[in-house]
Amino acid sequence: MKSINPDDFKVVNAIQLSEMPTLLDVDGDDEEQEDKLAKVRTKLSEIQEVMYAHNRYAVLICLQGMDTSGKDSLIREVFKETNARGVVVNSFKTPNSSELEHDYLWRHYLALPEKGKFGIFNRSHYENVLVTRVHPEYILYENLPGIEKVEDITPKFWKKRMKQINNFEKHIAQNGIIVLKFFLHLSKEEQRQRLLRRLEEDKHNWKFSTGDLKERELWDDYMHYYEEAINNTSTKNAPWYVVPADDKEMARYIVGKIILEEMQKHSDIHQPELDDDIKANIEMYKEILKKEL
Amino acid sequence: MKSINPDDFKVVNAIQLSEMPTLLDVDGDDEEQEDKLAKVRTKLSEIQEVMYAHNRYAVLICLQGMDTSGKDSLIREVFKETNARGVVVNSFKTPNSSELEHDYLWRHYLALPEKGKFGIFNRSHYENVLVTRVHPEYILYENLPGIEKVEDITPKFWKKRMKQINNFEKHIAQNGIIVLKFFLHLSKEEQRQRLLRRLEEDKHNWKFSTGDLKERELWDDYMHYYEEAINNTSTKNAPWYVVPADDKEMARYIVGKIILEEMQKHSDIHQPELDDDIKANIEMYKEILKKEL
Repeated sequence: MKSINPDDFKVVNAIQLSEMPTLLDVDGDDEEQEDKLAKVRTKLSEIQEVMYAHNRYAVLICLQGMDTSGKDSLIREVFKETNARGVVVNSFKTPNSSELEHDYLWRHYLALPEKGKFGIFNRSHYENVLVTRVHPEYILYENLPGIEKVEDITPKFWKKRMKQINNFEKHIAQNGIIVLKFFLHLSKEEQRQRLLRRLEEDKHNWKFSTGDLKERELWDDYMHYYEEAINNTSTKNAPWYVVPADDKEMARYIVGKIILEEMQKHSDIHQPELDDDIKANIEMYKEILKKEL
Repeated sequence: MKSINPDDFKVVNAIQLSEMPTLLDVDGDDEEQEDKLAKVRTKLSEIQEVMYAHNRYAVLICLQGMDTSGKDSLIREVFKETNARGVVVNSFKTPNSSELEHDYLWRHYLALPEKGKFGIFNRSHYENVLVTRVHPEYILYENLPGIEKVEDITPKFWKKRMKQINNFEKHIAQNGIIVLKFFLHLSKEEQRQRLLRRLEEDKHNWKFSTGDLKERELWDDYMHYYEEAINNTSTKNAPWYVVPADDKEMARYIVGKIILEEMQKHSDIHQPELDDDIKANIEMYKEILKKEL
């Protein structure tokens, strides 16, 4: 299998989703992919242990993608070997009434990972420029000053909101959070097949809702707004990666590899050394312990 | 008494604290001041009720000042008549270990007021460019990437941090929080007298700590960094007010009046109207209730 280079998926210049692959044409079979993913997740767990001891960095992983794009199973598979203490997953649903008492970033700020940890946002603050753009009436629940009706929500409003998101991410990146954002890029045809399968398999059809079909009708709108959000918020501090998602195994491997390589770039992540104080007095501490006998 | 104009205390251009008054030379006695404050706080409680029903805005009040400058008693006096539901006071002490697992703004973000409420920060996120500048070794507890020793904390670090604070405040202001910041400007001589009194009065000497005197020795450093912080972070969205604080009654009245007038500028704060839906069907609802008999 051709080696995966994170830069191939990183959004640096403006992209068009319709021109980005949803499936990679690579050699190698499923087993080979599973092997590679296994190696990546072992390394991920090792580097997380060091990051935890070092206690300066955290990693925020934002996962976005259409329904059935494989976000849940990706999280399960990529972080299988990581110490549960070191991974905190947050799934963001429709904001509740107490969350709506605050600005839209508030609940995401609350959920940011502590130092040394992976924080995974399964759907993220980006829904605030995605689902709310497709359904602008949802914005009205936010009770924003000056926004009384849908007509008040201008293109400038969205531009400003995307800038606010960039500022937020810049701030957390400057303070030690490695921010990585993934769009699981699924084709409309692959979704059709996955939804069909979901209906056909007894084990999975509880996941089906009529909403799935309603949102599917809005596919082109979603792609349009995803494209705009990604192009406006892929920054040096907090890049977007567009990951082909029609092959779940492949998507997991790509995401895992990108996280690993981005963390390895922070070469200052290391096991802390013993304090000089403790070092200087270590013989004395030993003496004290010995004398207890 | 000369009427108080908020603009007289607002920091628009760079100021020098040594040239700002700590006491106002005004006519009128204490009783007159107390009367004026009483009127202000009645109006404050009225406008807060409307803001609560309107549910679009909140007010964040940041109170800063040297020890004994009267922050606690000011909060008590200015908000005496406000519905307790509508006022949330947060006193920020030395960050604890769980707070230090996050960036320095995190605990302040958590404590932001809900819509319709006054949120009061008794000492605020500004301590992160004040006490930590006087004692830069405290920054090391934040475990920031690249900051291993005091020498790593450059002037650029502080500039960046003040920009981060401006971005934070801009964000919350754009999302409906009215941000008002007050520096209670006390003279060094008045502090000397208040500390002496604190020692002499049995009822209050529990408040005295040797730390008070230690920080007092660093008075000039504090003034220098206060000045720099104020000049770098007084913005249109989140202005600083330098309030003469040698006369406690006067300081309370000035702060109350500024909050009131700044809120009144938001002329769109109003009681919400009945929903069109409910309006259209109100006779029907009445019928339903009548038929219950």
